[in-house]
Amino acid sequence: MRRTSTRLADGREIIYFDASDTAPDRRVADPRDLGPVSTASEIRYDAALDEWVAIASHRQGRTHLPPTDECPLCPSRGDHRTEVPAENYDVVVFENRFPSFAAARDVLPEDSVPGGEHGASPADLFARRPGIGRCEVVCFTSDHDSPISRLPPERVRLVVEAWVDRTCELSRLPHVEQVFCFENRGEEIGVTLGHPHGQIYAYPFVTPRTRRMLDAARRHRERTWRNLFADLLAAELADGSRIVNSSEHWVAFVPAAARWPVEVHIYPRRQVPDLPALDEAERDDFARIYRAVLRAMDNLYDLPLPYISAWHQAPVRIDRDLAYLHLEVFSVKRAANKLKFLAGSESGMGVFINDVTPEQAAASLRAAAEST
Amino acid sequence: MRRTSTRLADGREIIYFDASDTAPDRRVADPRDLGPVSTASEIRYDAALDEWVAIASHRQGRTHLPPTDECPLCPSRGDHRTEVPAENYDVVVFENRFPSFAAARDVLPEDSVPGGEHGASPADLFARRPGIGRCEVVCFTSDHDSPISRLPPERVRLVVEAWVDRTCELSRLPHVEQVFCFENRGEEIGVTLGHPHGQIYAYPFVTPRTRRMLDAARRHRERTWRNLFADLLAAELADGSRIVNSSEHWVAFVPAAARWPVEVHIYPRRQVPDLPALDEAERDDFARIYRAVLRAMDNLYDLPLPYISAWHQAPVRIDRDLAYLHLEVFSVKRAANKLKFLAGSESGMGVFINDVTPEQAAASLRAAAEST
Repeated sequence: MRRTSTRLADGREIIYFDASDTAPDRRVADPRDLGPVSTASEIRYDAALDEWVAIASHRQGRTHLPPTDECPLCPSRGDHRTEVPAENYDVVVFENRFPSFAAARDVLPEDSVPGGEHGASPADLFARRPGIGRCEVVCFTSDHDSPISRLPPERVRLVVEAWVDRTCELSRLPHVEQVFCFENRGEEIGVTLGHPHGQIYAYPFVTPRTRRMLDAARRHRERTWRNLFADLLAAELADGSRIVNSSEHWVAFVPAAARWPVEVHIYPRRQVPDLPALDEAERDDFARIYRAVLRAMDNLYDLPLPYISAWHQAPVRIDRDLAYLHLEVFSVKRAANKLKFLAGSESGMGVFINDVTPEQAAASLRAAAEST
Repeated sequence: MRRTSTRLADGREIIYFDASDTAPDRRVADPRDLGPVSTASEIRYDAALDEWVAIASHRQGRTHLPPTDECPLCPSRGDHRTEVPAENYDVVVFENRFPSFAAARDVLPEDSVPGGEHGASPADLFARRPGIGRCEVVCFTSDHDSPISRLPPERVRLVVEAWVDRTCELSRLPHVEQVFCFENRGEEIGVTLGHPHGQIYAYPFVTPRTRRMLDAARRHRERTWRNLFADLLAAELADGSRIVNSSEHWVAFVPAAARWPVEVHIYPRRQVPDLPALDEAERDDFARIYRAVLRAMDNLYDLPLPYISAWHQAPVRIDRDLAYLHLEVFSVKRAANKLKFLAGSESGMGVFINDVTPEQAAASLRAAAEST
């Protein structure tokens, strides 16, 4: 594998991950005339829920993105200049031009200091801080029409290497507390770019959902001396009714209390805190199970399923021993022509009402699996 | 006010709230031939997040609802038989035919006991219980085309009386721990019935979002001896920049850490745990501020705004002194033609990214207010 880091016209970093060490040189200049990246991100503390919320008002004016023949994630060819200056690539990562979180130099007025003016007092009910962190785009392939589920296993493995690299790098940035690798797919969840890609958010706090999971894991360990997620995985394996797929190193199942009509969690059999902690065999083996799960999902209703695919990694600094790396993939589609909406119960009270039993969902996904 | 309780053809309760004691008798028989209500609701404990999730598989087959001239929430007239047998009504409440939660007699096999077979052991990672509770529909008016914001204040006051009545009644049901009055409006959040109506869920647990708020309020009280929500209201009033509207007894503001592009919280100036605790003057005064806030929202983009309107009431039994009744109204519309989607960051990690600053949102809502 070869890694090449360079810069876009406006100073953003772009990193090429090539499977072959003899791939063409990717250090191609970006000839576009781009204005400077401007970000006005801040995070605000919601005292009523004890959670941080990001306010990113510069994003409201972000461009809605162009038709396929002007895809900004395809490589640059001829007069078609995109976000990727090179003529081709395997996997490429670059900083988002409309980031929710950005480097301190981009979000901080020159004379301000994080935690200084705002939020210094714990009694301050309206604590505010600059939205320090980083947001990146990960293109899985230069082929506009190949979803990750249809890429060869070696390419998925290269995507894993990119995630590992970014997790390590972003974890070293000042103020970054958690690195989140994810993919949003489908217009039904607001995705406007068809090109196969994911995103990475480096947050300046431990996210609310992760914190709740780690709090539950802490209570479980105090009670049992065991890891909550390892116990859940063992219980799912023992029960068996919700297992969707498994391989030497990975297990995919619908959780017993699934919130979404389609929801699959993929755990490594060995407890590790994050992607960099996976060994070579686990990284190789991931492509097999992930492609199989995504293909079964697409077969469910015989259409490309809109989904969110979310890597749960340990925070950078705290509770790493309580965490258990896993991937949660879920969809808002509850039938070929019906969406699950988050209405009053879900959005107002946090109570999910799932119309599909997890056992039915697992059986449907097993039936939709492709023979390999 | 006159209250009339009777039954629909399948045994569900229907309750008419009439402003006048001399309204026509509402005890009209329901001539429809309805099969029995069948529910297969259960709640499952998600150990990874320490939350209950409802699984309501009978709802997957629920009817998608008919065109306007067959509206099931209009009164029954001539051959058009609806969910409301009477020829007219002011406000009417009835049990949902496809409930997420239902009475023990409807969800329990005859020989099972809540908490018996399932979930007896706290170590059980897959605890399950029957989905005991109740789900009701609240029709605000018999006029199909009058949203609650356009009803006369006396009618909104009657809706408040219905909410109060239902909160009292439902709080007395076995296993009910929290009563949630809400309205979903707009196709953008999945509402298929245009008739102005809300819903009430009586949950068999304290909801996750309420529990988080009460936990935050408990920590605040331990630290300060004061109520968190009263302090937040006072801080908003002192700051002033996010106040949208106020009246003698109520204050409406955009919270400092708003999650949604349009989000307004409406608090009574006096701390009360729930709707039944409001006094006469507060109940009267609510209509004024609520109608003003909703009308400003409709004026924002010059179209009926899709929204979720969610009453936060104290749980039935616990932490009632920590709670502070308030209404949260929010919308997924971030521009006339753009929706906010809950994608990876929101759904995967619980981190909301709001593209509109709360101060901008409040200024827009103030500018959109109608002179009265």
